[in-house]
Amino acid sequence: MVLFVIGLGLADEQDVTLRGLKAMQGSERVYLEAYTSIFMADGAVERLQTQIGKEVRLAHREVVELEADDILELAGTADVSFCVVGDPLSATTHTDLILRARNRSPPIPVKVIHNASIMTALASSGLAAYNFGQTISVPFWSESWRPDSWLERIGENSKVGLHTLCLGDIKVREQSEEDMARGIQRYQAPRYMLIPQLISQITAADTEHQTAYIPADKTLAVALCRMGADDEVILSGTLAELLALASPADEAAAQQEEDEDEALADENGWGEKEVAKHKAQRAEERAIKAYGKPLHSLVLVGKRLHPLERDYAGMYKVPGSRWDEVTKEVYGCES
Amino acid sequence: MVLFVIGLGLADEQDVTLRGLKAMQGSERVYLEAYTSIFMADGAVERLQTQIGKEVRLAHREVVELEADDILELAGTADVSFCVVGDPLSATTHTDLILRARNRSPPIPVKVIHNASIMTALASSGLAAYNFGQTISVPFWSESWRPDSWLERIGENSKVGLHTLCLGDIKVREQSEEDMARGIQRYQAPRYMLIPQLISQITAADTEHQTAYIPADKTLAVALCRMGADDEVILSGTLAELLALASPADEAAAQQEEDEDEALADENGWGEKEVAKHKAQRAEERAIKAYGKPLHSLVLVGKRLHPLERDYAGMYKVPGSRWDEVTKEVYGCES
Repeated sequence: MVLFVIGLGLADEQDVTLRGLKAMQGSERVYLEAYTSIFMADGAVERLQTQIGKEVRLAHREVVELEADDILELAGTADVSFCVVGDPLSATTHTDLILRARNRSPPIPVKVIHNASIMTALASSGLAAYNFGQTISVPFWSESWRPDSWLERIGENSKVGLHTLCLGDIKVREQSEEDMARGIQRYQAPRYMLIPQLISQITAADTEHQTAYIPADKTLAVALCRMGADDEVILSGTLAELLALASPADEAAAQQEEDEDEALADENGWGEKEVAKHKAQRAEERAIKAYGKPLHSLVLVGKRLHPLERDYAGMYKVPGSRWDEVTKEVYGCES
Repeated sequence: MVLFVIGLGLADEQDVTLRGLKAMQGSERVYLEAYTSIFMADGAVERLQTQIGKEVRLAHREVVELEADDILELAGTADVSFCVVGDPLSATTHTDLILRARNRSPPIPVKVIHNASIMTALASSGLAAYNFGQTISVPFWSESWRPDSWLERIGENSKVGLHTLCLGDIKVREQSEEDMARGIQRYQAPRYMLIPQLISQITAADTEHQTAYIPADKTLAVALCRMGADDEVILSGTLAELLALASPADEAAAQQEEDEDEALADENGWGEKEVAKHKAQRAEERAIKAYGKPLHSLVLVGKRLHPLERDYAGMYKVPGSRWDEVTKEVYGCES
């Protein structure tokens, strides 16, 4: 029989293709991979179940990794659908399942049904899909782990003048380091990297390595948020402007916040950890107010910017942006 | 009202999304852009019409360019769908229509409904979507016009070690130079660039410019043909091997063909032009026998090949391919 590997598209159950829908309807079992990508609309999984008239099993990382043989065993005797929000091959995560299916004896036929992913929707930025270089993924940093191998890739794209799509990290069903150490099986709330953190980590790495690939006031970027959803948000400007959009209005306001935090900490007897949590929560609220709920991605604009791209992406510039000035003076994009 | 710009996906009317289908069903008028991309399955337009219960107007280049104002005028008072096979923004061709809609007074809301395109399906090659550089389009060469600015882009990707997606040219409703000169309004049969011509033009440019980006026996590539269709064909190997697949078996066979062509020319009183036409036709038949009908695209494999990519793309290697040897010796891909 067939293992269908189906892309569900960008936002919700309305983005599935007729071909994908038919494959799911004819399948003995339907899995929805639930750790590299998510439906952005609430209730989409339930509506998808109604749509196909059968149960959709959420497949977390451990299911896909530990039960792969069971999935393939079943696919040997009946059609099975393995669904992924976005396009199923845009991340490399599912290559292993496909290779294993094909290497079985007898091999299980695999049929990939492609769909739009953020790597398609990037063209909604107004920048030409042809002019993008390699895509990078930016993982959450912790105090002890700050991976930044993606910085070199930004540099490579940047030297050629290509745009870079930067994908924010997604952490679903992660355990805290403390719980893991204690052997407690408990999951933290899902975390999604938002625009301000994406910008902060990218510029921090650039500063640390003194690479100067992306000076914050001379690098243009386009924020792509909730692409394909009804409430999608596209905003362009310099990295500094996009960051400012989710920051206190000025130094005085920032100072006032600091003072309030201190007062709150005193009042409630908070330690460092509680204060940090409070600050993180406020930063998240502010990011969501400016850019909407996750998923967020960021495009760094390459120097080979074409006037048509400048005009199109410029339609999304934040109020008061130096977009026109920077495209001309830094990017040399005239006419 | 809304101008819906809708991607129809890879192969036929089954690849439309539910969201796209609904938009078309609710539109006063539905256009299908018919010159940058095509449905690969016969009868797909008719089935799409049945599916949405209304006429689909084929929009050739002149319609989109000359009647853009009419399309937008209508979109000011009613929903209009402008459909494109693949993703509507993967080519930059339709940027102009969208910009004009947004710049009208009052602006016409534009809603883009993304879908899979060849830029999504490239991951079916087994190569990771993350590791692709800029995409190039290879136009048909004529005797007097041999554009090759894309060669430099192959070089840029190649230096970094990235893969390059090479799209073959599509010529629909083109006029011959002779007819144009004589002012005759007559269209030639559609032409689609097939794998052998893609490889020939790319290697010819590389040789002419002495750039040596892609030596034919040391460069690996993956042919992606009719992606998303039921008869899709994926084949990998060196450029020389992929070319050989649609060439005479050996020198003796090639010589025999030459002799037969000469005899045919004598017999039928053919001039140079007729002989060239006969050869071109045979080359096309041979290409289709090896790779299937259009559309064809080619991926040039970058030096940063990962072992997992090597194994996955290697599943598609042509019989007798030096894939394993070249990945090891030229690409340095071991483990």
